[in-house]
Amino acid sequence: MIEFETIIKQNKNLGDYKLLTPGPLTTTNTVKNEMLFDRCTWDDDYKKITQKIRKQLLQVATVSEENYTAVLIQGSGSFGVEAVLSTVISNKDKCLIISNGAYGERIVEMAKRGKINYELYSCEYDTIPNFNEIRRILKDDEYEFITHIVMVHCETTTGILNPIEEIAKVAKEYGKTLIVDAMSSFGGIEIDVKGLGIDYLVSSANKCIQGVPGFSFVIADKTKLSRCKENSRSLCLDLYEQWITMEKDGKWRYTSPTHVVAAFSKALDELFEEGGVRSRYIRYSENNRLLREKLKDIGIFSYIKEEFQSPIITTFVFPYDNFNFNEFYNYVKDRGFVLYPGKLTDVDTFRIGNIGEIYEEDIHILCDVIKSYVMGRK
Amino acid sequence: MIEFETIIKQNKNLGDYKLLTPGPLTTTNTVKNEMLFDRCTWDDDYKKITQKIRKQLLQVATVSEENYTAVLIQGSGSFGVEAVLSTVISNKDKCLIISNGAYGERIVEMAKRGKINYELYSCEYDTIPNFNEIRRILKDDEYEFITHIVMVHCETTTGILNPIEEIAKVAKEYGKTLIVDAMSSFGGIEIDVKGLGIDYLVSSANKCIQGVPGFSFVIADKTKLSRCKENSRSLCLDLYEQWITMEKDGKWRYTSPTHVVAAFSKALDELFEEGGVRSRYIRYSENNRLLREKLKDIGIFSYIKEEFQSPIITTFVFPYDNFNFNEFYNYVKDRGFVLYPGKLTDVDTFRIGNIGEIYEEDIHILCDVIKSYVMGRK
Ligand SMILES: Cc1ncc(COP(=O)(O)O)c(C=O)c1O
Ligand SMILES: Cc1ncc(COP(=O)(O)O)c(C=O)c1O
Repeated sequence: MIEFETIIKQNKNLGDYKLLTPGPLTTTNTVKNEMLFDRCTWDDDYKKITQKIRKQLLQVATVSEENYTAVLIQGSGSFGVEAVLSTVISNKDKCLIISNGAYGERIVEMAKRGKINYELYSCEYDTIPNFNEIRRILKDDEYEFITHIVMVHCETTTGILNPIEEIAKVAKEYGKTLIVDAMSSFGGIEIDVKGLGIDYLVSSANKCIQGVPGFSFVIADKTKLSRCKENSRSLCLDLYEQWITMEKDGKWRYTSPTHVVAAFSKALDELFEEGGVRSRYIRYSENNRLLREKLKDIGIFSYIKEEFQSPIITTFVFPYDNFNFNEFYNYVKDRGFVLYPGKLTDVDTFRIGNIGEIYEEDIHILCDVIKSYVMGRK
Repeated sequence: MIEFETIIKQNKNLGDYKLLTPGPLTTTNTVKNEMLFDRCTWDDDYKKITQKIRKQLLQVATVSEENYTAVLIQGSGSFGVEAVLSTVISNKDKCLIISNGAYGERIVEMAKRGKINYELYSCEYDTIPNFNEIRRILKDDEYEFITHIVMVHCETTTGILNPIEEIAKVAKEYGKTLIVDAMSSFGGIEIDVKGLGIDYLVSSANKCIQGVPGFSFVIADKTKLSRCKENSRSLCLDLYEQWITMEKDGKWRYTSPTHVVAAFSKALDELFEEGGVRSRYIRYSENNRLLREKLKDIGIFSYIKEEFQSPIITTFVFPYDNFNFNEFYNYVKDRGFVLYPGKLTDVDTFRIGNIGEIYEEDIHILCDVIKSYVMGRK
């Protein structure tokens, strides 16, 4: 108990807290220190950083430069998702959107705004898509209007991990272009991009690669992307033009977030130093298992069944009727950890992310803090 | 001469350089230090920073909260410009775009992509728009199809300062909504937003406010913006929804660049500490005057006539026929300063920005470095 109090004091003395959120997350100091220098967007040294990042992202995705390219886009993760939708789904195309959460629903909103043809397959937030139903939709699509399938890998809304392998198999079987929003999973869960036949994968700087927020990126099939000239409904979100410009020498089309980019470059190096995606996956999975077990012991249960649970973020159901989330949040924050509210409308929940610079010892301390709160109130 | 060599050494020892570019620019260490902490996007402390920034931006614009609002948007400055165009010009509207440079032309590209109706008035890069011609276009617009006027204040392409007062007067006379891209001038040049009747003004974090790059912002007339629901052709670039969400409690609609936002908050404080826009304008103007004078003395002349020259950035014509810009750039960079290439197709030029943490002494040293290069080559 002494150690627990000491570490909490350390956190507090720094005026600091650890983020147990779905990202932006806790990054290393070495990553943040990269932001202490003002770089010139036009300078070779800086352009080389961009090119290095693009190469490393392909390595993380285990794909070759021959077939794939990595394109970075200013803005948050949603900007990357919308850039893909707007650029790769032309007016003649139609996409099938698979949704079981708020991020799937956001894709629907994007399609509506861009007047992109779509069909929606949705299921409950706590269940995974039914492959037979997806297969039936494709079968019923007699004239093959559907050209693209869009899905979310880890639905951060609940923490459910959608079965990308099975859906990718169906997409391949029917020859559809596959777009995956892997925002909160890429870098933290191994994804065999080429093997699965993923054509476009989107993620962002502040998730499992452990950079700071400010841009998103797309791993794209070069042959497919090269056919997307002039599709985009927006100039800034034109993934094709962004690629063509960046491909020349690493200069971004418009001003890039130089400090954030430099931090991300360092974060990628640190991912490789940790042992790559496999090692990070193990750390995150251990964090997640420990968290769920320890909270279960004190009567706080996950919303998602264990078999569908991602190692990224967990939704927990309020442990008792008059549970006061704001009070709980502040109690835990005062002790050096920041949690996240739930995103469900029908069940009262909160969420705990376990990605970023978070280790087993953090989870132990966090759970002790939560325990001391719950024991004092129940 | 000893002092000159010493200071150059100091710069070099830091592995550092000063940016004499149109932004991203040299920021203070105190601004950069704000990025050493990972903030939670959902936390009150962070949301308060956003609300503080929004209030301060209205102060910089000398407008009241009653009539105006400040909306922050992820992405570079161009994202802010496109968000305004996409959200405030509906399918029934038409805009007159006034252009004398690359950024005016980018606005035309945005209109094309968004299928926004537009008419273009353009003039040579080294001349300012002719008010009589603009007045004639509006007069000839018998059925009043034109509802909006879009213009760039400081055209960073050349450094020309467009006469905002005169164009605003014409816009008012004809009752048109006025959109101003004040990317490289806002915060460095006083702009009487309300007095001039500017309805939307766009700028970004990494220009005269002296923050780091990562988002843009819009000062908007609240009454006009409130009529723009569901206009936007893009979800991410929907300025109306961004406003409605941010207005609640300062939470951004999608993940915000937390580190960049914190740095910007500090940069705004430092702008006020310096004495506000007026003081900064004087510093920039002095920098600019000194730079042009000293370079003129060694035979390097500005492209833009003095009367149209902005105090922000200057385009200089190559001083002699076989002037090698890359060699020149590296020579100057090795001595601690980074310059910028020109953006003209017909004349060989380079550019020097004088915004950011740049003072008279920097200009003196820079000009000595340039002189030593030119004298050695001519
Ligand atoms: C699966 C998923 N998709 C999209 C997003 C949106 O990303 P952003 O908030 O960076 O726009 C998130 C953010 O957490 C996410 O987890
Ligand atoms: C006048 C003007 N408009 C637009 C932009 C575009 O801004 P960004 O490069 O941040 O997209 C700039 C950038 O320098 C500019 O100076």
